[in-house]
Amino acid sequence: MENFTFYSPTYFVFGKEQENHAGKYVKRFGGTKILIHYGGGSVIKSGLMDRVKKSLDSEGLRYVELGGVRPNPRSGLVYQGIDLCRKENVDFILAVGGGSTIDSAKAIAAGTVYDGDFWDFYKGKPVTKALPVGTILTIAAAGSEGSPDTVITHEDGMFKRGASGEALRPAFSILNPALTQTLPPFQTACGIADIMAHLFERYFTNTKDVEVTDRMIEALLLTMIHEAPRVMEDPNHYQARANIMWAGMMAHNNSCGVGRSQDWASHDIEHELSALYDCAHGAGLAVVFPAWMTYTMKHDVSRFAQLAVRVWGCQMDFANPEATAKAGINALKRFFKSIGLPSNFKELGAREDDIDRMAQTACFGNGRQGTIGGFLKLNKDDVANIYRLMI
Amino acid sequence: MENFTFYSPTYFVFGKEQENHAGKYVKRFGGTKILIHYGGGSVIKSGLMDRVKKSLDSEGLRYVELGGVRPNPRSGLVYQGIDLCRKENVDFILAVGGGSTIDSAKAIAAGTVYDGDFWDFYKGKPVTKALPVGTILTIAAAGSEGSPDTVITHEDGMFKRGASGEALRPAFSILNPALTQTLPPFQTACGIADIMAHLFERYFTNTKDVEVTDRMIEALLLTMIHEAPRVMEDPNHYQARANIMWAGMMAHNNSCGVGRSQDWASHDIEHELSALYDCAHGAGLAVVFPAWMTYTMKHDVSRFAQLAVRVWGCQMDFANPEATAKAGINALKRFFKSIGLPSNFKELGAREDDIDRMAQTACFGNGRQGTIGGFLKLNKDDVANIYRLMI
Repeated sequence: MENFTFYSPTYFVFGKEQENHAGKYVKRFGGTKILIHYGGGSVIKSGLMDRVKKSLDSEGLRYVELGGVRPNPRSGLVYQGIDLCRKENVDFILAVGGGSTIDSAKAIAAGTVYDGDFWDFYKGKPVTKALPVGTILTIAAAGSEGSPDTVITHEDGMFKRGASGEALRPAFSILNPALTQTLPPFQTACGIADIMAHLFERYFTNTKDVEVTDRMIEALLLTMIHEAPRVMEDPNHYQARANIMWAGMMAHNNSCGVGRSQDWASHDIEHELSALYDCAHGAGLAVVFPAWMTYTMKHDVSRFAQLAVRVWGCQMDFANPEATAKAGINALKRFFKSIGLPSNFKELGAREDDIDRMAQTACFGNGRQGTIGGFLKLNKDDVANIYRLMI
Repeated sequence: MENFTFYSPTYFVFGKEQENHAGKYVKRFGGTKILIHYGGGSVIKSGLMDRVKKSLDSEGLRYVELGGVRPNPRSGLVYQGIDLCRKENVDFILAVGGGSTIDSAKAIAAGTVYDGDFWDFYKGKPVTKALPVGTILTIAAAGSEGSPDTVITHEDGMFKRGASGEALRPAFSILNPALTQTLPPFQTACGIADIMAHLFERYFTNTKDVEVTDRMIEALLLTMIHEAPRVMEDPNHYQARANIMWAGMMAHNNSCGVGRSQDWASHDIEHELSALYDCAHGAGLAVVFPAWMTYTMKHDVSRFAQLAVRVWGCQMDFANPEATAKAGINALKRFFKSIGLPSNFKELGAREDDIDRMAQTACFGNGRQGTIGGFLKLNKDDVANIYRLMI
């Protein structure tokens, strides 16, 4: 295990009807003038927005609103939000929605108190100061409700990039699993893939002697494998939704990623897909991960075999560990397929012709130096080969 | 899963030589005049105290010292600490030691800013205000470095009781596994038992549908079972120490105990033993737990069987789940024995004659109402029967 620091000061409020206390928590964490940030009309139609406003009203809190966040959130709305926050002297941002809304809120929170262009943070500048953000989560997926991370797509060039900083950990996050019960099955499945991806990206490490975090990652994967079929069969299964929701937060607040190198190449490879085709991030990850695993497996067969045995329940083939490793990858493919996720370029709406362009952007775009990945360094050719495994 | 809140704002600094940055963290969290609280001479002899003072000096921080914390920390020193903090206008307490030292520091931190008797908190009053506490941990065991809890023994009656409150979460905790390498094997083993007990106490629940926390608890238990023999064989095994240390924090900061009922009867039953015989808390737990499990097993055989299969690798006896459950308890007994822990009253130095007295105090002492336990409610007779299983 390597040296590390870990700081997760978010106040988590988990359970039924907790969104009705949003005002109390905004007040506790210092908000007086709020920006309510949200996506489409679903939070309004469902009545959630009314409940949130009622809660803010009951605490005497003033607010302005900015909706319109879309999946793969864009820079344009962030600039708009920054202007609005400055004009209205907003001191707290309340994100009501999923990872895209929270990520957009974090970008606005950092940009509002920064003199330069907020995109500087997405080019690598660490975020050290931001307005406090509270979240009311409506989909278990991105983990942004507990993470110090945000991902935004810049409309000038369609670069999809991440920024990070402890100042971006939400002040509080309200997680009510019942709010996720109305999600369409495909979105639920995409969220499951995103959560599992966050775990794989931490699992594939070159750091030795990381039993405690290995076991925790495996625990969360086992939870997802147990709960996913239950929620796909019955979207109203509160308990399955609850287990997935807490696993989703734990998967990405980094408590199970500390002290070990990680590998985020798969996210990078996927970001090119969702930036170019505007596909759902989780759907892209479901296509990318088996390909990435197949390509990198030989770098550490025993780690892949460990995953296959401990998580997928494969029998260890002691005479041929590679067969076990492959069995684990096949189990993952079957699992993603069983919950209705795509497995190739065609199902995703991606085109073979774009492979070279995407590989180029993934490895060189927006200041990158030619390779991505921490487990196995991948150059442009490697990335192109991985894309080809998805055809 | 039940509704819950979870808040763990402690800044964790993990790894080699991190105690040399103590001053920086004290300053970051607002300390200007420090009480350094510690136990015996070992932290002085080892040179740790010198390094800590040097770090405080380099930040220009002033400090006073109070040593003498003993295992099963006592109220007398707490009163002394409170007087000292008030007299010296201390605004930050730095605990250098194990769980006892940290618990004593927390008691002083709460008592210093409270008008009444600090023992009120140990009679059930929630702690809402306390001086900030920083910790430099020297043994992986109690989990106090990440928890909102403290346990103190009152010398008037030798009641051993706990207090709790979010204000008692340390501001920062420095976890350097190398500092635990000099522990005698018995103390290391006691720490392992304490960590595992914190996991069992969360595992045995009546709450249904808690897969995510079940799996996380199992993950941490598997880690302990893997690392314990490595560290017993080689006390200088840094990586085994590191895995145990992070597992010890995770076992008790409650991230794997949220949303589920818990059972703390075993800790209560043990507290009578360590209060009366001054035995090591972990050694007491190693004797108590198999007895408690044997007594309560029939309340939920399938939960015990799940533990046996998932954690101890027992084969599930589908025709006779009780046999599987028992096999798991036997595996735990063998495990504790293998790391040199006691397994009965005699090895612990406890006396059969005291059973009724201990059962009475466990169930009625210090304001209790006649029963203990959340998984299975135990009355005085039950507790006495459990003690008898330890003879």
